[in-house]
Formats: sequence, C-alpha cells, structure tokens
Amino acid sequence: MNSAAQRTVFFISDGTGITAETLGHSLLAQFPEAGKLRQAWVPFIDSQDKAEECARAIREARGRDGVRPIVFSTLVDPQTVARLHGEDALFIDLFEQFIGPLETELGVAPSHEAGRFHDIASSRSYKARMEAINYTLAHDDGLSNGPDLNEADIVLVGVSRSGKTPTSLYLAIQFGLKAANYPLIPEDFERKRLPGELHQHRRKLFGLTISPERLAQIRQERLPGSHYASLENCRHEIDAARKLMDRENVPHLDSTHTSIEEISAHIMQHLRRYALYLAP
Amino acid sequence: MNSAAQRTVFFISDGTGITAETLGHSLLAQFPEAGKLRQAWVPFIDSQDKAEECARAIREARGRDGVRPIVFSTLVDPQTVARLHGEDALFIDLFEQFIGPLETELGVAPSHEAGRFHDIASSRSYKARMEAINYTLAHDDGLSNGPDLNEADIVLVGVSRSGKTPTSLYLAIQFGLKAANYPLIPEDFERKRLPGELHQHRRKLFGLTISPERLAQIRQERLPGSHYASLENCRHEIDAARKLMDRENVPHLDSTHTSIEEISAHIMQHLRRYALYLAP
Repeated sequence: MNSAAQRTVFFISDGTGITAETLGHSLLAQFPEAGKLRQAWVPFIDSQDKAEECARAIREARGRDGVRPIVFSTLVDPQTVARLHGEDALFIDLFEQFIGPLETELGVAPSHEAGRFHDIASSRSYKARMEAINYTLAHDDGLSNGPDLNEADIVLVGVSRSGKTPTSLYLAIQFGLKAANYPLIPEDFERKRLPGELHQHRRKLFGLTISPERLAQIRQERLPGSHYASLENCRHEIDAARKLMDRENVPHLDSTHTSIEEISAHIMQHLRRYALYLAP
Repeated sequence: MNSAAQRTVFFISDGTGITAETLGHSLLAQFPEAGKLRQAWVPFIDSQDKAEECARAIREARGRDGVRPIVFSTLVDPQTVARLHGEDALFIDLFEQFIGPLETELGVAPSHEAGRFHDIASSRSYKARMEAINYTLAHDDGLSNGPDLNEADIVLVGVSRSGKTPTSLYLAIQFGLKAANYPLIPEDFERKRLPGELHQHRRKLFGLTISPERLAQIRQERLPGSHYASLENCRHEIDAARKLMDRENVPHLDSTHTSIEEISAHIMQHLRRYALYLAP
C-alpha cells in the first residue's frame, strides 16, 4: 500500500503454538530480504468462537497491511481449518499438507485430536524432564558433592562464564538430561590435573571453550576492571583450560559463535543419543 | 516383515535438527495407533560425504525393517535433498513443500543457507535470552532482594513445589523473559496478605496452583513422612494460597495436568506477548 506497510504473520494452533512458531521461523529465516514482518502468535484456538475471532484478525490484518497475511498453522480440527481458509491469506498448513501422506504410509487413521502436549504433564518422560531440571539446578557451578555425579548424564566443564549453565539447563529442559557443570579454576591449572571428583567421572565430561576477547567482554559486564575480567587473564585461563582438557582427553567445543541449541545438538551426538546410525 | 518389525523415523537437518524433530513429533502424535517407531536424529548434514552416509543409513533401515522409513527433513541444500530422494522412503520435506509458495508470496528469493541458528549466538535476541536465564537463576525461589524485581517481566508465585522453577526457566530459555519466582509460605497465609516486596509488583504476579494429591506426591518424594508433605497440610496451603491470590487479584493457573510449555503459552497470552490481535 505504502512504503511503511508491513506484512502480518500469524502462528495459529489449537495447542501452545510452539510447533507453528518453530516451523514458521525456520521457513522465514530463508527469506532475510523479506523485510520486517509483524508477528502474531495465536495459541489455544480450540472453539468455533475463537476460530471466528481469529478469522476476523486475519481479515483486519489483510485490510490494514494492504498485502495478504501469511498463516502458519498446526490446527487439526477440520472445521476450524475450513473456517480460516475462507480468508484471503497464504496458508502454510503443516497438518493439511502432511497428514495425508503419513496416513497412507502408516496405514492407520489420524486422531485429529488437538494439542500435542495433551496431558503430557502426567507422562513418564515429562516427569523425567522435571527431575532433570531439578538435578541440573542442584548441580550448577560445582555446587554438588562428588558422589552425586554418579547420576549425571553429562558434566560440562570450562572456565567461569564459558556458557556451561545455560547449556546445562537447555539439555535438561529440552532433552531431559541430568547435566551437571563444574568450573575449571586457577587451582586446577596449577595442579595441572582435574579435581579428584571430576577425574573419576572423566568419561562424562564435555568441555566448553570460548575466545578470550568474548570471555573478557562477558566478564567485564559482571566485574568491570577486575583482574578476573582482563583480556590477559582470560587468555591465560582459556589456554590453560584447553591444555588441561587435551591432556585428560576431554572433548571440547568452542561456544563463541555457537548457540546453546547447537552446542546441545553436538553433545547429544557425542552421547550417541543423536544420530543412531551416523555415530562415528 | 514380521510382527517384531519396527519402522524407522529419521529427523534430518543441516542444522541442529530441532525444527525437524518438533515438526515430526507433532505430526506423529496424530497417529497414536502407529505403534513403536525407532527414531534417529541426524543433525549437521552439511557436506556431500555426510549426505552419502545418511543415504546409506536410510537404505539400511529400509532393508532391516522391511517397511519404508519416514524422513522428516529441513535440509535446504538442493544437492543434498536430491541425493536423499534417491532412497526408498516417505519424505516429509518442510522446505521443499513450503519454500515455493512463500517465495511467490514474498516476492524475494530464498537464501538456501543452511542452519537456522547460523551465528545466532552473536545476535541481540540471543544475548537477551542468556541474560534472562542469568536473571531467572538469580531470582529463583525468592532468593532476590525486593528492588531487583523492577527488572522482572513476570513473577511466578505459588506454594513450594507447584512448578514455579521449571516454568520460570522455560520462559527464560524459550522466550527470553526475566522470570522471577517467589514461594508463598505459611507466614504469608497467616498475615493474609502478600509480602511487601511482592505487593508493590502485584501487576507482574502470576500464580500457579496444583491439586493437593499431586502436591503431596511430589513433596513425599523429597521429604517422606513430613508434615510438609502430608495431604492435610498440602490441602491447607493450597486453599490458603488460592484465597490469597483471589483476594489480591493475582491471576492463576492449575499446573496439575498442564506442562511447562502450556503454562508458558498461557503466561505469554496474559502478558499480551502472544495473540496480539486476540487479546481479550
């Protein structure tokens, strides 16, 4: 309509909308040139009234923007889907597109039941994830006692602020892993070996490294002007940590340009929980 | 082939595989009758060698299972896609299916660049998520000082073990919200009002409740036989907490059959970060 016009993107679901959003963001990431898009997350569309309201919102966006909205949908109820398809929008419809081929292949009918997380809260795997979160919190930053590491699925090691804590939490929340983490400190470097309790769990260790520049920047935000945050000290600690990990055969990964999602996927591969057939 | 034969499902990606897995699980959840499926996550397929290895794994699964594997793919490289499509499998191909219509609609070409999380680690929104995780950890279980709550996006309240901590962490990791949480304790119930520091942030509060039976079960696992874990005490605390929240106009949600994903989506709606157009 005019140069300020912005297109609207809807993520619509009868559940949480997490799948619709993940799907939509992955696809839209392929179009960095598309310009700014206004985003509307619309979860829990589980009644005809809400479907009606949703249709109206799509119609309003169409009128205001002057361009068709894009709708990413994981709706399963055929009536709701039909109601929305009356509107002038591009529908990227996960279930409509793929349920048919899957039904043919699997030879069983789909349930058409809404909500991927339907009472998942009572399932065994959900409870295991909650337990993993509790374990991970209790074993953050070396707070644990040695013997407890028996229960750990993985123990992240690295210098302070190398990304251990957020990665541990992501592993627990997303994959239900009991992920302890343990900081490597100057004392360890002087001794030139891992602390005793880590040494006995050496096969569970996974190291995170980071560039000295990035580490100094992160530490400066916490303790500006300190020796701890100085580039020189960061260089020294990272170098000593890498040598220690190499000496003890601890696999490690650089977190400088790597998100917690990517680090976690690498760790899952390392644990052979990913890539059953492609394990090295 | 025989009754013990199991079908294999692949989640294949040139990135972390998280989108492929989310997509696949949502779709497969529609087929509860499909029986057990062997799952193989195959992230980081970003070279022709890896594509070759991947093709071989699909071929082997086909031979062993006696039924075609199902492949959920978010591969973007056309050569890799072409290589895999030579195998005998059902391909549920997110990008192949949807990139075309999006390209037409948006009027710009897709980048075909692999990896949704490509150096996301350096982006502003990623750093905000990391900050939110740090904030949330520092403000878990009322550890914070009052004034700090100024920075909170949301403050979860509820009795001990009602699900505040895992929900806070999910909100931080998934949505970058600074989510403090604060336990309601018997002292608060006797006083019949919120502690002072919460009262002044009343508009940020969101309550979690839970059934007394479930709460007693969770607490028994931690402190078996205690008054704290007794059904009678759980009933009393939950009743008092609900009355307190109603009196202070704190919105609340029952977490008994609700996953942290669902609770979080409700909270996002409450904060109007979800459902821009459907806010009540």
